[in-house]
Amino acid sequence: MSTQTLTDGSVPQRLAHTRELMRREGIHALLVPSADPHLSEYLPGYWQGRQWLSGFHGSVGTLIVTTDFAGVWADSRYWEQATQELNGSGIELVKLQPGQPGPLDWLAEQTPEGGVVAVDGAVMAMASARTLGSKLEARGARLRTDIDLLDEVWSDRPQLPNAPVYQHLSPQATVSRGEKLARLRETLKERGADWHFIATLDDIAWLFNLRGGDVSFNPVFISFALIGQQQATLFVALGKVDASLRAVLEQDGVTLRDYSEVADALRAVPDGASLLVDPARVTSGLLGNLDSGVTLVEGLNPTTLAKSQKSQADAEHIRRAMEQDGAALCEFFAWLESAWGRERITELTIDEKLTAARARRPDYVSLSFNTIAAFNANGAMPHYHATEQAHAVIEGDGLLLIDSGGQYLGGTTDITRMVPVGTPNAEQKRDCTRVLKGVIALSRAHFPKGIQSPLLDAIARAPIWADNVEYGHGTGHGVGYFLNVHEGPQVIAYQAAPTPQTAMQPGMITSIEPGTYRPGRWGVRIENLAMNVEAGSSEFGEFLKFETLTLCPIDTRCLEPSLLTEDEKQWFNAYHAQVRKRLSPLLDGAALAWLNTRTAAI
Amino acid sequence: MSTQTLTDGSVPQRLAHTRELMRREGIHALLVPSADPHLSEYLPGYWQGRQWLSGFHGSVGTLIVTTDFAGVWADSRYWEQATQELNGSGIELVKLQPGQPGPLDWLAEQTPEGGVVAVDGAVMAMASARTLGSKLEARGARLRTDIDLLDEVWSDRPQLPNAPVYQHLSPQATVSRGEKLARLRETLKERGADWHFIATLDDIAWLFNLRGGDVSFNPVFISFALIGQQQATLFVALGKVDASLRAVLEQDGVTLRDYSEVADALRAVPDGASLLVDPARVTSGLLGNLDSGVTLVEGLNPTTLAKSQKSQADAEHIRRAMEQDGAALCEFFAWLESAWGRERITELTIDEKLTAARARRPDYVSLSFNTIAAFNANGAMPHYHATEQAHAVIEGDGLLLIDSGGQYLGGTTDITRMVPVGTPNAEQKRDCTRVLKGVIALSRAHFPKGIQSPLLDAIARAPIWADNVEYGHGTGHGVGYFLNVHEGPQVIAYQAAPTPQTAMQPGMITSIEPGTYRPGRWGVRIENLAMNVEAGSSEFGEFLKFETLTLCPIDTRCLEPSLLTEDEKQWFNAYHAQVRKRLSPLLDGAALAWLNTRTAAI
Repeated sequence: MSTQTLTDGSVPQRLAHTRELMRREGIHALLVPSADPHLSEYLPGYWQGRQWLSGFHGSVGTLIVTTDFAGVWADSRYWEQATQELNGSGIELVKLQPGQPGPLDWLAEQTPEGGVVAVDGAVMAMASARTLGSKLEARGARLRTDIDLLDEVWSDRPQLPNAPVYQHLSPQATVSRGEKLARLRETLKERGADWHFIATLDDIAWLFNLRGGDVSFNPVFISFALIGQQQATLFVALGKVDASLRAVLEQDGVTLRDYSEVADALRAVPDGASLLVDPARVTSGLLGNLDSGVTLVEGLNPTTLAKSQKSQADAEHIRRAMEQDGAALCEFFAWLESAWGRERITELTIDEKLTAARARRPDYVSLSFNTIAAFNANGAMPHYHATEQAHAVIEGDGLLLIDSGGQYLGGTTDITRMVPVGTPNAEQKRDCTRVLKGVIALSRAHFPKGIQSPLLDAIARAPIWADNVEYGHGTGHGVGYFLNVHEGPQVIAYQAAPTPQTAMQPGMITSIEPGTYRPGRWGVRIENLAMNVEAGSSEFGEFLKFETLTLCPIDTRCLEPSLLTEDEKQWFNAYHAQVRKRLSPLLDGAALAWLNTRTAAI
Repeated sequence: MSTQTLTDGSVPQRLAHTRELMRREGIHALLVPSADPHLSEYLPGYWQGRQWLSGFHGSVGTLIVTTDFAGVWADSRYWEQATQELNGSGIELVKLQPGQPGPLDWLAEQTPEGGVVAVDGAVMAMASARTLGSKLEARGARLRTDIDLLDEVWSDRPQLPNAPVYQHLSPQATVSRGEKLARLRETLKERGADWHFIATLDDIAWLFNLRGGDVSFNPVFISFALIGQQQATLFVALGKVDASLRAVLEQDGVTLRDYSEVADALRAVPDGASLLVDPARVTSGLLGNLDSGVTLVEGLNPTTLAKSQKSQADAEHIRRAMEQDGAALCEFFAWLESAWGRERITELTIDEKLTAARARRPDYVSLSFNTIAAFNANGAMPHYHATEQAHAVIEGDGLLLIDSGGQYLGGTTDITRMVPVGTPNAEQKRDCTRVLKGVIALSRAHFPKGIQSPLLDAIARAPIWADNVEYGHGTGHGVGYFLNVHEGPQVIAYQAAPTPQTAMQPGMITSIEPGTYRPGRWGVRIENLAMNVEAGSSEFGEFLKFETLTLCPIDTRCLEPSLLTEDEKQWFNAYHAQVRKRLSPLLDGAALAWLNTRTAAI
């Protein structure tokens, strides 16, 4: 992610300029969310307006500016950073806490009768705009979404990214774009929709078997898509698509139009037509272009469910990618063990060496997210990232947490392992063992097909709760197929709403990553990816279970094996036997020796 | 529960009469739910209009009558019964299935534009009336709640029950009614409400430390309550309260008014006042009496949360009641073992002998629900009840399921145990053992204080799902304190919505009762009651755990101990040691010998 450098004093100037424009327009409060027209997790610099205007560079946060107040709402991950970065800016940090009112509630409460709240409709989901709009209306206030105040203030706004678009090809692309489009059109018929509009980048990349490089770590490209029974139009900066790709797409019935023409195309959807959209995944600004005679059919994008369910053929590629990724990790760990005490190793060295090991593997494309290498106290921050300015040297005793992943043509990986440094103490071992028990409990669970994924979370947490220990993040997120490392619709987190969309289906890939974080001391997380596979059916219905996809030893030197039950040891030894069997053919020398040592049965 | 006997041919006549009145009033569809003005689970005969009009006597079902259609919506528990009872009536059985549209959806779809749907507002929750009303409005149709068509048709309508009201006294009533009223008034102030109206009978019984006998098994009396900062009015048939009780209540600031005067009292709530009500627990008919200038403050009745959290003093009485109940069960089981092969034993004998054993115990009041004694195939019906007309003789081999409970002055019990008959087969033993594993898993769990109870269900189910087995009912319901055996707000059922109201708090009592049902073969359920107690706090927050309250051996002859882990055996043996220690002092002779044998360690 690109970030802006904060020039001293510039934030107050920017705010002053913004307030001038607010006065001119009769606006009482300006809302600047962390969002873009695609409602992506990672934003290109062009849409980092909240960072630019507030000087707070955390990736998630919401800025509100009124005539006499400015505040950034941020969750606990960012409190330390926000406190530092907002110091002297005239902007308050408002600590966002689960169950507490958020920035939209604040606006609904604080806006005076007759007041006007402005937000750039181009970056606010229709669902959120509706919620805020009706809350304001209930107070006699009004939401205005037709103005991008920031654009006028933001003199040095970055350009949109411009990486080339390329094909995700057979054999890794196991279903052709023609077939995917045909299936989508079937679904549109079933839902009674003439058209479907997609703004989310991973849905578009998946549907068209295309990939790009516009967003860090996510192999997607900035675009929109409008699909009808006869037409499929992809809106993308035309310079990103070369002539031969353009020809291939045209042959498959895909028309290219410039990214800037999407509003025109929406305006041209005929009166009387019906359009399927996901109100949480399309902005109110874009939909505002539709003729009032267009009927909205609201629901999850069909591609979101389709891409979450990996096919048997996809699964075969993913297993191969997992083997390559595991082999890269073994090479890295073998190096690390040989280097202890001989080289100065920092958190940055870990990132560099591990990335290099992955990059040597066939079909490697990029990392799937910023590597987290976090020693002792740094590991207690689940979203820690070491920088040139601030990173730890790894020495003494304790635990090193490494959370990393790669993008391969045949799959996306995401794995967390704990590394013993010197001699971990007994409490650290107990923490690691308890977290492992959580991993095992969920990894071996069966569950009814179609159960809402948040309801499974307690299975992973029960062995951790048993010691009155808890962790604040979800246990698992969906993972794409050479796509985003975070994808929906399923999520294993008891804090999430168990909506029908979260129903567990065969082929979904989810992380299993419980943890334990002791602020100022250390953090523990163990993470595997697991795929839903059939567990058989009985008179009680169909059941699913997890196939653990991730292949890499879990270091027993961080564990207290006496805390594991016989059952758990059995799972653990069987997992290590599988890791050894599948990775051995890809390794030799020190890496193979490391694998053999670290997969010895307990 | 009282039920009406169906006279042959009378249902078609009743329907014809009803349709005449519908024509007169311009009504297109009449909705008759299973409900009363108190939205109780068990209905007095006076409000069994759906049974009377349809001839279907199941306790839950919804009747809809239109000019050319009549249907009863009933869930799978009642399909067999409804098919038989509706045969020849001209009423269709509409099978209600989870996730499928229900009767209100049907009305919303089938009512023509301009159509009128009628329901007696006196028996429909405000929340349901709102939902249905707005669905109908969206179609240009209308809901009418101001007419009780049925009353005109129903010539031989039963009287309201008239059992005397009595006090729940110290020592079992551990908080005085004055103190309870004071706490409620504090809560009203916090919520900004001048008044609070209660229609739910267990809330009223709890608040005033009164009990009654108007509803089978639930020691409540038919009443409403209206509470302000200075006033507390109880609306009850005055003949149920004798002079001395009336004087006691008046001394505590409680005014009595006749049950029939509640509408007048609601009409008299002054314009400008605010009234706290639970929209799911008060009918739209009653609230229709309020002046339009009264502001509704909507939320759970404060008494519902308060009564769910049993105090330490309550818990002491409950532990004593559980000991008495367990002792009664031991006496019953000792008799049963001595009687096998010597007497003819039917499901009805079980009910009779077990009830008699409970009735001998001090402070016994009544059963807490209809005993379920279900042999083999009958056990596969979770809500089976043996009758004079249809019951099984217990002979041969298999499993006898006994689900029963008592009301004691110091607590309400609810327990299910499996009894081996002859020699249970290996599959039966596996089913029992798997269910026991579910009981153990949840019984020993710790969990964060305040977690939403439905999220804990997977912990009980994981060991059962492991064999691709599932059960259709919830794992646990809340239980009252000498009150209803089913009470909220918590429920351990993954099918239930994890609303904030379901947050687990200390002192709540919930059943833990997983099961396995093999239609036509046998059913297994094991049930204990468990109370939320503090499990300690840590840097990760406060945790709760369950104290198992129910004290009675779980027969090891129904189990396959080799399927239990060491951990599980430890829990099981510790439980049996506790049962033995606590029940021994209350038993002698054969019952004591039985206890000792059946609590031997495995």
